[in-house]
Amino acid sequence: MRSVIAIILTTILIPVTLRGDEGKWTPQQVLEQGQAWVTARGFGLPLDRLWNAQAGGGLLANAVQLPGCSGSFISADGLLVTNHHCVVSILQEHSTPQANLGKDGYLARTRADEKASKAYRIQVPRAFRDVTREVLAAIPASADDVARFRAVDAAEKSIVAACEAKPQTRCQFATFDGGLFFTLTEFEEISDVRLVYAPPEMVANYGGEVDNWMWPRHSGDFALLRAYVNGQPYAPRYWFPVSTEGVKPGDAVAVLGYPGRSYRSFIADEMAEREEKWFPAVRDLNADWIRVLEQAGAQSTTVAIAVEDELRSLENTRKNADGQIAGLRRGRIVEKQRAADARVKAWVASRPEHASAIEGYEGLARLNAERLRSWDRDFLLDVIARGPRALRWPTQIARRAGESLKPDAEREPGYMDRDIPRLRDQVERDQKRYIEAVDKALLRAWLRRALALPADQRITAVDEAFAGATDAAALDGRIDQLYAASRVFDLATRKAMFDERPDVLQARKDPLMALGFALDAERLRLKTRRDAASGATLRLRPAWRRAVIAEAGRPVAPDANSSLRVTFGRVEGYTPREGLVALPQTTLDGVMQKHTGQDPFDVPASVQRAHASARASRWRDVTMGQVPVDFLATADTTGGNSGSPTIDGKGRLVGVNFDRVWENVANDFGYNPEIARNVNADIRYLLWLLDDVEHATGLLKELGVQ
Amino acid sequence: MRSVIAIILTTILIPVTLRGDEGKWTPQQVLEQGQAWVTARGFGLPLDRLWNAQAGGGLLANAVQLPGCSGSFISADGLLVTNHHCVVSILQEHSTPQANLGKDGYLARTRADEKASKAYRIQVPRAFRDVTREVLAAIPASADDVARFRAVDAAEKSIVAACEAKPQTRCQFATFDGGLFFTLTEFEEISDVRLVYAPPEMVANYGGEVDNWMWPRHSGDFALLRAYVNGQPYAPRYWFPVSTEGVKPGDAVAVLGYPGRSYRSFIADEMAEREEKWFPAVRDLNADWIRVLEQAGAQSTTVAIAVEDELRSLENTRKNADGQIAGLRRGRIVEKQRAADARVKAWVASRPEHASAIEGYEGLARLNAERLRSWDRDFLLDVIARGPRALRWPTQIARRAGESLKPDAEREPGYMDRDIPRLRDQVERDQKRYIEAVDKALLRAWLRRALALPADQRITAVDEAFAGATDAAALDGRIDQLYAASRVFDLATRKAMFDERPDVLQARKDPLMALGFALDAERLRLKTRRDAASGATLRLRPAWRRAVIAEAGRPVAPDANSSLRVTFGRVEGYTPREGLVALPQTTLDGVMQKHTGQDPFDVPASVQRAHASARASRWRDVTMGQVPVDFLATADTTGGNSGSPTIDGKGRLVGVNFDRVWENVANDFGYNPEIARNVNADIRYLLWLLDDVEHATGLLKELGVQ
Repeated sequence: MRSVIAIILTTILIPVTLRGDEGKWTPQQVLEQGQAWVTARGFGLPLDRLWNAQAGGGLLANAVQLPGCSGSFISADGLLVTNHHCVVSILQEHSTPQANLGKDGYLARTRADEKASKAYRIQVPRAFRDVTREVLAAIPASADDVARFRAVDAAEKSIVAACEAKPQTRCQFATFDGGLFFTLTEFEEISDVRLVYAPPEMVANYGGEVDNWMWPRHSGDFALLRAYVNGQPYAPRYWFPVSTEGVKPGDAVAVLGYPGRSYRSFIADEMAEREEKWFPAVRDLNADWIRVLEQAGAQSTTVAIAVEDELRSLENTRKNADGQIAGLRRGRIVEKQRAADARVKAWVASRPEHASAIEGYEGLARLNAERLRSWDRDFLLDVIARGPRALRWPTQIARRAGESLKPDAEREPGYMDRDIPRLRDQVERDQKRYIEAVDKALLRAWLRRALALPADQRITAVDEAFAGATDAAALDGRIDQLYAASRVFDLATRKAMFDERPDVLQARKDPLMALGFALDAERLRLKTRRDAASGATLRLRPAWRRAVIAEAGRPVAPDANSSLRVTFGRVEGYTPREGLVALPQTTLDGVMQKHTGQDPFDVPASVQRAHASARASRWRDVTMGQVPVDFLATADTTGGNSGSPTIDGKGRLVGVNFDRVWENVANDFGYNPEIARNVNADIRYLLWLLDDVEHATGLLKELGVQ
Repeated sequence: MRSVIAIILTTILIPVTLRGDEGKWTPQQVLEQGQAWVTARGFGLPLDRLWNAQAGGGLLANAVQLPGCSGSFISADGLLVTNHHCVVSILQEHSTPQANLGKDGYLARTRADEKASKAYRIQVPRAFRDVTREVLAAIPASADDVARFRAVDAAEKSIVAACEAKPQTRCQFATFDGGLFFTLTEFEEISDVRLVYAPPEMVANYGGEVDNWMWPRHSGDFALLRAYVNGQPYAPRYWFPVSTEGVKPGDAVAVLGYPGRSYRSFIADEMAEREEKWFPAVRDLNADWIRVLEQAGAQSTTVAIAVEDELRSLENTRKNADGQIAGLRRGRIVEKQRAADARVKAWVASRPEHASAIEGYEGLARLNAERLRSWDRDFLLDVIARGPRALRWPTQIARRAGESLKPDAEREPGYMDRDIPRLRDQVERDQKRYIEAVDKALLRAWLRRALALPADQRITAVDEAFAGATDAAALDGRIDQLYAASRVFDLATRKAMFDERPDVLQARKDPLMALGFALDAERLRLKTRRDAASGATLRLRPAWRRAVIAEAGRPVAPDANSSLRVTFGRVEGYTPREGLVALPQTTLDGVMQKHTGQDPFDVPASVQRAHASARASRWRDVTMGQVPVDFLATADTTGGNSGSPTIDGKGRLVGVNFDRVWENVANDFGYNPEIARNVNADIRYLLWLLDDVEHATGLLKELGVQ
């Protein structure tokens, strides 16, 4: 009890003025706020070491973009740290029923042992540019909403294409707050990425779905990769030294990375749509699909491995949806947003220079109301892209065929020449995850919903394909028929189909391809509706947001959009709910306390052995007297920040961000300093694993700690 | 955050010397420890007001025994407070699908509105006596184990019978630590008990199974009853005034009542049997049965009401079993007990006066090893008494018929003349809970286990009755046959059967009665084995316990055995696990924070309305600024303490005990001051409900607070 008390006292003595605060800032905004602002956030480093607009870089640029995740370099030889859950696809690629790398972990004792991945690519930022002027100049003065959307879309494509003319270059266009400004980031793309170290699942994902999004947490959610270029280790422009000092309550930290999406610039009606329609629909559909994958996985190890990352992703999304709904309700976020909207509207009333803001606001509300009219149907069309392969594959092939007829620059993003090698990889990789019985069950869950749509929202393609299926048995029969008759499940055939023209595909008379074409047509019509809405939004939202920012009278961080951001915070606990205080750090003792010997609380024997002498390890936290595992901070993160480096005020790596607390997932909509906590794996836990468990001398030397 | 911090500081500044400590003490032991000991526990009252051996009473005697629970008087007119979950059977008795008292609650606005119960009886203690000398005198010097058991059994019966010769008197015999000493408590039995107030379920059982055994808790688990004698309100000898001041962290409290069973006097092997066999078996069987009742209840409101309290009891037992297993493991209780056993054995080695202790210890270990040999079979025979009615009823009727042939004093406890009215009530009451489909499913779960027993543990009666049932369909068919052919499910027939002699019953050729007789015979053989073991235990355990107590060199509280006990504690939080601190009090704000509008977090509209002005209520806690709901204390409680009065150092009622925290359920085996916390409903919450929600002026006047 005594040490707990000491920690509480330390925690509560942090002056409130030094607390981290709201905002996923662009590097440019950090510069604009100046040295004093950064210093007050605990960062003693000269501003130009963090970011130098002239050089187009700085320490903040050591945030590498991974598929859906972030990471950072931690050695001059291209060693990169991220989360275990960001490399599941690599672990799966190298796993067999006999050697399950996801479960058992992996350590390459020499560089020759590092495991290359066929499909995994990373992007290292090289240059950043504001392209707002170019984009706006491309919109004709007379443009209607559709024309405006198409003009911006064309501008994006031409800017990106010009940028990607350089070899090994990927460029990313980003729209801020619905069109307030636009940026382009140029990345060096590295396609030779090799697995160096992954802890066993019962370290990396300790607590599994029970602990996911929860605190106290005891996960070593780490993975080490190495980037190679021309067969040689990549020499990064920036890399973080690992801190051997670690963190303590109150310490300043910053988290860098590529947060995916947030919705704080939404008006109240748009937030209500998320709370009342989107998250409940996602939660319910995912729950159905999870049941299917779990039942299948319970019957076969091969299946369990094949569906592992999809299951994890579905579970993650469902728990997130639950948390979003609970957080939106509990934080009364929609209600508060409505009040904030009203405040800005009142402020605007006496300022004629912001007259267009009200028009913007009302236009956004109208667009939202329109969306609600065909919401259920549109949702089902959208989820095809992550649904049963029987719909996903034919629809994608149909779209690819359609787009291939257009000149490259006019194609839908994702189907341009630059995207094709990646899509081709996916066709092959995806085959491993296809299991007929599972896919049929996923399809049944989707069809049950589609066949229950109200009369004014029916999907004709589905009604026609399943016309006779009036009861469950008939439906099952029709599904069996379709699977038996279609060739899309055969990899060689599907690969061939992937490059066929629409007429050749149609001539195959494949019944699922026919459904795919019909659904694709429905989706194209939906896209046209959405393009018009997007064009309108490009006009409406900036007008409204300009007023919001002006009314605030201070810099406002834009919504997350997968562009590079930095957030400042402090190591700090919180009150998850009445009657409980969460302390900000956990240790190996807590890992052992949770150990039951049963998944997901089954500590590997090697870790149990090393735990016996951990209190004497050089990686122990001196105050807590034990090796630290995870810590909380007040950094303002979201999905996409997984694997983000967490650095201290001296620019040293102290942790790897891997989660937010469950109470805080609705921070995507509104910030609440009382519960805004991100969850980090303490870098000393990684060092302890490498040192006391794995005795990985080579890596420790490379990290400069041996 | 600020108020939370203040509470933490208050909590952690409690001097450790003032903390409550281990022990469910008998009133006699409280007296023996003296005034200074009691004063140090925060009780300023003169010792003889708490307990006066001459008068055979005192404040500690205001603990009333309820079915499986405790309660206490709080007015001169026989008003009694206990837990809502202790009166579920009364609520059920008066519920219909139209008016569900369990769900909606009930308030009698006048005495005429109070709801009488047919079967509910309470016992008010009148006198206490140590009967060790009489019991030991009854054992012949030459007795073997069976004879010793029978002699003690006969002595118990004759002592109880003599005591119960008085009218309206129930007497309870209690064995301490396996025969170290014996006591007799004489109770006044009151059979006219009426329901005065029960809050709605979403107050009383707020959080349901999600929160059960958990903290932070927000349940108003209260019920008010009134005792009547000869149609007049009962005038109790003692009653507690309710405190309007309430409690704050650090305050001294005592909890009185009838804790059911604990196992701290077990040797390590006996504890291991609980951890490895008993709790896992209970958990698994209950899980099966819960599934059956839930599925049936989901389909019909009538069924849901009929099975409500059985379901609650099964769920409670399962979660308890989970907690016991987790607590035994986490606390390494068996391991520690083994070390403690070894320490006493070493101490005994040099003390010839305790030579018999080692023999006692080894004998207990041998008995335990024997029990393990037929453990699975014996478990299934035991659970018949709470299992499917198809087994429970015939077996009970068979036993009743068999016992009725013996003279009263030789019968098995539970089947003596004194027990018959209660059994007869039960036959009638139990019919309400019988649902054929549910019962068949419960039977299937039991049979699956019985038919899977290893060859050396088969139950012949079952093998014969289900000989042809080699697959699930055949088994179902055989079950249907038995239910169709038997008359035990007909209430009138069963009532008649209840008084028939064995030969008359046999002549009925009822197939389930035939199975009942055969199972009863198996159970009688098991009982004979157990009687011998109990006789041996009466000899072995006292020898061992005398050495344990001598080695301790201080008073040792005996294990709980449903006799009156008092435990002293303090209001105090705890650390449920690494990274979390639990604060000791919750409020109405926490109730509203958990509100989702969905069961089990659906706050009644009347409570929501009253919450709006609760911060100004006279029942608010001044420090927290809100009406308090529940609080933690360090009192050493167990099952049976439900409804126990929690009193302050001035002998005023401050709360009603209703639970322990989940981490602490294994305290039945070993005490751990770090996690030993009981959960109390704050009496101010009850007063607020009566005042601000119900406006029950009459009751508030009776409690002296209006």
